[in-house]
Amino acid sequence: MTVLAVDLGGTHATCAAVEGRKILASETVNLPQSLPLAAALAAIAPPLHKLHSTWTAEGIGFGFCGLVDPNRARITSTNGKYTDAVGVDLTSWAREEFGLPLRLENDARLALLGEWYAGAARGETDIVMFTLGTGIGGVAMMGGHLVRGKHQQAGVLGGHIPVTLIGRRCTCGGVGCAESEASGWSLPLIAESWPGFADSALAPGKVTFENVFAWAAKGDKVAQQLVDHCLRVWGAAAVAAVHAFDPDLLVYGGGVMKSAAVILPYVQDYVRQNAWTPWGTVRVTAALLGNDAALLGVTPLFEQELSVVR
Amino acid sequence: MTVLAVDLGGTHATCAAVEGRKILASETVNLPQSLPLAAALAAIAPPLHKLHSTWTAEGIGFGFCGLVDPNRARITSTNGKYTDAVGVDLTSWAREEFGLPLRLENDARLALLGEWYAGAARGETDIVMFTLGTGIGGVAMMGGHLVRGKHQQAGVLGGHIPVTLIGRRCTCGGVGCAESEASGWSLPLIAESWPGFADSALAPGKVTFENVFAWAAKGDKVAQQLVDHCLRVWGAAAVAAVHAFDPDLLVYGGGVMKSAAVILPYVQDYVRQNAWTPWGTVRVTAALLGNDAALLGVTPLFEQELSVVR
Repeated sequence: MTVLAVDLGGTHATCAAVEGRKILASETVNLPQSLPLAAALAAIAPPLHKLHSTWTAEGIGFGFCGLVDPNRARITSTNGKYTDAVGVDLTSWAREEFGLPLRLENDARLALLGEWYAGAARGETDIVMFTLGTGIGGVAMMGGHLVRGKHQQAGVLGGHIPVTLIGRRCTCGGVGCAESEASGWSLPLIAESWPGFADSALAPGKVTFENVFAWAAKGDKVAQQLVDHCLRVWGAAAVAAVHAFDPDLLVYGGGVMKSAAVILPYVQDYVRQNAWTPWGTVRVTAALLGNDAALLGVTPLFEQELSVVR
Repeated sequence: MTVLAVDLGGTHATCAAVEGRKILASETVNLPQSLPLAAALAAIAPPLHKLHSTWTAEGIGFGFCGLVDPNRARITSTNGKYTDAVGVDLTSWAREEFGLPLRLENDARLALLGEWYAGAARGETDIVMFTLGTGIGGVAMMGGHLVRGKHQQAGVLGGHIPVTLIGRRCTCGGVGCAESEASGWSLPLIAESWPGFADSALAPGKVTFENVFAWAAKGDKVAQQLVDHCLRVWGAAAVAAVHAFDPDLLVYGGGVMKSAAVILPYVQDYVRQNAWTPWGTVRVTAALLGNDAALLGVTPLFEQELSVVR
């Protein structure tokens, strides 16, 4: 079957036609920040119509960057983005605009489904996937099923497990979350308040993970300390996920994985040294599908019976 | 049906005959520290024989203070206690010694089962129970089933979710676990290295939660800081559990709950302020059964089909 896929992030949306493990065609739409969801839907309708007219899809799989209730196809909460989203009826939109059924999932859950169906986690049943980007996604699958929970928000907040007691306020409302300690949005805030930042090589430019890893490799002390801090945050989040969900495999995706050569060995060692896993060692691996992961996740979202782990 | 219950902790074992929600009789045996499990089994055999001869049990429900595989009735790992335990065949012991089938579970899981069956969590389906004592137990039930995981260690390590990046080494091998930051065994270590401890009211005596809460109430500054630290650790662990397992209810048991009047309102407020739960508020409540919880857990362990959440 062919499915239209939407991967809606904070700054852009990717629309695609997907058949099985193949992306037939795709188009990315840039979205202004602070756009209401209703306006974002209007912006993605034309590319979706174009894809639908070419490929005749049977449904729309919609990945959203916030908490969702897949049973009701409703967005339940966002942290800062699309503040009108909770009231939007996506099912009606899909039916009225395209005459198609819609399935909604959290974008990070959809990316894990994609890696499980077509990428780094094929054949696995017990997985946690971390997406290190502007935010941190942390999603769990147990026994071949996404972990969903009573209110559909279990196993999807791996980036919002607290890792430090005296930490930054996070966009989720918590304190010291992995995301508020070591993500794309929090990195500049952390860097700017780091002792010695003003005299470091980082100070004149924009603070990005790319710059921080590059300057750390060149020997800048503050950059090295920031890398150490972030690695430790990701290591602690990994141990938390292992202790909570008991996976065989941790999969790492997201833009920060340009520095996979530093991150993966560190996390593998951290987990080996700090997680209590008498049965063996949790494997740590890179995601394979990049931005395609969430798009390819729509196939299992539609085709397979994804029983709820409650 | 009548079941023999064993709740084996680090320093003592309680043996009981249990029928439904009723403890027919019980006996507690003190055990020297560093005892091998084989010797502990020899020590609890006489009281179990006595109970069995009076009540004619149909099985033994065994709660153990470490990681277990309930399917194979094997202990998979301990942190410091009963270092011979992994090799011990409890099924054979129960059959040869008593002619009875045995079911093994982690002691904190068994306590949650007890509170669910006969205590503070009756009628609930999605619960995390924290036992604040010498260590910290943190156990999850989702959808009416214990969370077990691929290697039987999911949902049972709530006390070993890291809560701080620069923390103490824990007995589990991790760093900065809730248990190594605010439990009975770690409290004296934390107190002794706390700034100003030597001049505080705590210095002359033994550092226990009872003393620390008592001196904090009397205005001792170091004791107050220690209480604040522990409350924050328990609050962070609560948020971690909420974000991982999406429960309706957090249940708190263990000896430290003598100070429930301070702990429960704090955790309730902390969760309300820091957990991302758009569906409503996670309730926080005290366990009702005390040391009987794990004993009463043996009835559902035997009588009910406890499907595995994987």
